[in-house]
Amino acid sequence: MDEFKAISLWTSDRQSPEWQKKRGVRLGLGDDAASISAANEVDGISGPKNMLLAMDTMVETIHFNDVTMTDEDVGYKALAANVSDIAAMGGVPLHALVSVSVPPAYGPERIARIYDGLYNCASRYGIAIVGGDTTASPDKLVVAVTLTGSVEAGAELRRDGAKPGDRLFLTGPVGMSAAGLHLLGDGGGYTSANQLLSDEYRNLVLAHRRPAPSVTAGRLLMASGVCTSLNDVSDGLASEAWELAEASGLRLVLEEDRLPKSGSLASYGGRIGYSPLDWMLYGGEDYVLLGTVQEASAEKLASLFRENGLPFYVIGTTESGEPGVEMIPAEAAGIGKDSVMRDGNGYREQRRTLHKKGYNHFER
Amino acid sequence: MDEFKAISLWTSDRQSPEWQKKRGVRLGLGDDAASISAANEVDGISGPKNMLLAMDTMVETIHFNDVTMTDEDVGYKALAANVSDIAAMGGVPLHALVSVSVPPAYGPERIARIYDGLYNCASRYGIAIVGGDTTASPDKLVVAVTLTGSVEAGAELRRDGAKPGDRLFLTGPVGMSAAGLHLLGDGGGYTSANQLLSDEYRNLVLAHRRPAPSVTAGRLLMASGVCTSLNDVSDGLASEAWELAEASGLRLVLEEDRLPKSGSLASYGGRIGYSPLDWMLYGGEDYVLLGTVQEASAEKLASLFRENGLPFYVIGTTESGEPGVEMIPAEAAGIGKDSVMRDGNGYREQRRTLHKKGYNHFER
Repeated sequence: MDEFKAISLWTSDRQSPEWQKKRGVRLGLGDDAASISAANEVDGISGPKNMLLAMDTMVETIHFNDVTMTDEDVGYKALAANVSDIAAMGGVPLHALVSVSVPPAYGPERIARIYDGLYNCASRYGIAIVGGDTTASPDKLVVAVTLTGSVEAGAELRRDGAKPGDRLFLTGPVGMSAAGLHLLGDGGGYTSANQLLSDEYRNLVLAHRRPAPSVTAGRLLMASGVCTSLNDVSDGLASEAWELAEASGLRLVLEEDRLPKSGSLASYGGRIGYSPLDWMLYGGEDYVLLGTVQEASAEKLASLFRENGLPFYVIGTTESGEPGVEMIPAEAAGIGKDSVMRDGNGYREQRRTLHKKGYNHFER
Repeated sequence: MDEFKAISLWTSDRQSPEWQKKRGVRLGLGDDAASISAANEVDGISGPKNMLLAMDTMVETIHFNDVTMTDEDVGYKALAANVSDIAAMGGVPLHALVSVSVPPAYGPERIARIYDGLYNCASRYGIAIVGGDTTASPDKLVVAVTLTGSVEAGAELRRDGAKPGDRLFLTGPVGMSAAGLHLLGDGGGYTSANQLLSDEYRNLVLAHRRPAPSVTAGRLLMASGVCTSLNDVSDGLASEAWELAEASGLRLVLEEDRLPKSGSLASYGGRIGYSPLDWMLYGGEDYVLLGTVQEASAEKLASLFRENGLPFYVIGTTESGEPGVEMIPAEAAGIGKDSVMRDGNGYREQRRTLHKKGYNHFER
């Protein structure tokens, strides 16, 4: 098939020109480059703003395969991962470009389904798909996505702003995507043979296939003015915590019994005799937000999230020292609020270093 | 190697924070997303402007291999192809994101050389590299690049603005990259065995490996106000001409004896007994610009290019009719200026349809 005809088949009539125009698009798919009005106000941001740029790539056999993801899931998640990056800056996602490198084994129908997923995600987050590239690939599918966003100038939520004494928080449970992947892979696959198991743990499978990046939470954190640093949990909680610690130049102390654990995660772990903690610390692809907040404002921020119907979990503290990440095991701290505070020494003897290693494409 | 350390190894100290700041960068590599001042004036554009967005991907074995390109060439050309897209809109390139999917066989040194090429091209065109992604690839290298640009609002040089009676032009010779590829591949490879041949035709090899996108020409065309449509020749002259014809809804009539042919292209073709016309029409990756200009302004535009030391070739005309591309063979038109005009009927009987087929990733 002619490349232009193919791209047109996959993309035409997906987003109306009028809708794209409202998103600031002056010239979309079909020319050498897209053209976006720099003065667009579609992001709801008045006053000076900065443009955000993120790029994320998914490679067949590295990030997914035929068993773990449908074609539509691949498209959805490739864009969702970028949305999470914009969310982690406190921004609003706006315009996407999509590069698909297609192996000979993929016919036009499969590519159309990848685009179904992309447009599905784009529609969910109000993103205009304005360009990209389609090439052949010798063997494996590669989907690279670039996403723009907009944020109030100077209000970007960076990794390097945490201060000693801040509270460390998560905006949702971690480990569900990894457990879902386990269920789809080692767990036997999402097949009719284990349909019952898959149905019971459908939210774990969905967490892996259709992650829900935290744009609303990111906007709340940006507007609050008290969030000092922020990261999205794409590569595992431990790894992201290390990134915050190293960027901000301080120590993070997590408390195991404060980590938000979903019921189905605990249940699935129990069923197969596996402790969920590994998934929670090293699983990745959760796309919740990990950040720090000034101690005096932590309770106010938690209330703000409650009022907006969003989860918010304080999971630890920050302190000065050599950059690193420690965890107080559940058995040391016991159950209860303010566990670090209850022990005058912050359970210093019981802490153990959390290794950075999580889902790292260069160490696997 | 740790992904962050690796990326830092490949990218740190390449562009100073001060230089990036001058390019509008508020937050570059190392966070979830880059942040760019939307109000930046580094592009030299005063007044309302639009942001351009282009994305281009190069895949090992599809677009290059170890024989045709060095690692540094791959990085250089991946960015240069995007620069050409911004040039073809009449814009100024500004910020790039780079996604590299690395097979196990590539060690850190090879990736560093890919980045050498990327930064080399970035430096040549004043582009700040502000983000991207690095992942593993099971087998083949994939480099995807996104580039932003800036252009005066409403002055974008689109594909769909040509009018019947316009003159069709090229801003440089075509076919050299394809001939260079032939020399590197079928021609025997750029090896010590045929070093003499390679040295003699070094400009053909360079045209393939280090294309020079036409930013200055694009800016001249934008500022002229008389360029009615524009495309870059990435997929072959015939294919790009068809794109203009279909987007603008008219016929293009090329004259074979007006097509700019480099001396070394003719010489290399003669040496191996191959007519260069195929390379010129279907070769692609020349990254010169193909466009249309109002007839009354064609001579003025040619003068403007001469004054700026840039080549400019009128190669045909446009006329109303079913969208398509025709060519008047050299033997029909003879040699000379205004050949279409000399024949009262525009050599209508001698014309032959130029097929679209060029370098098309879906037809090969």
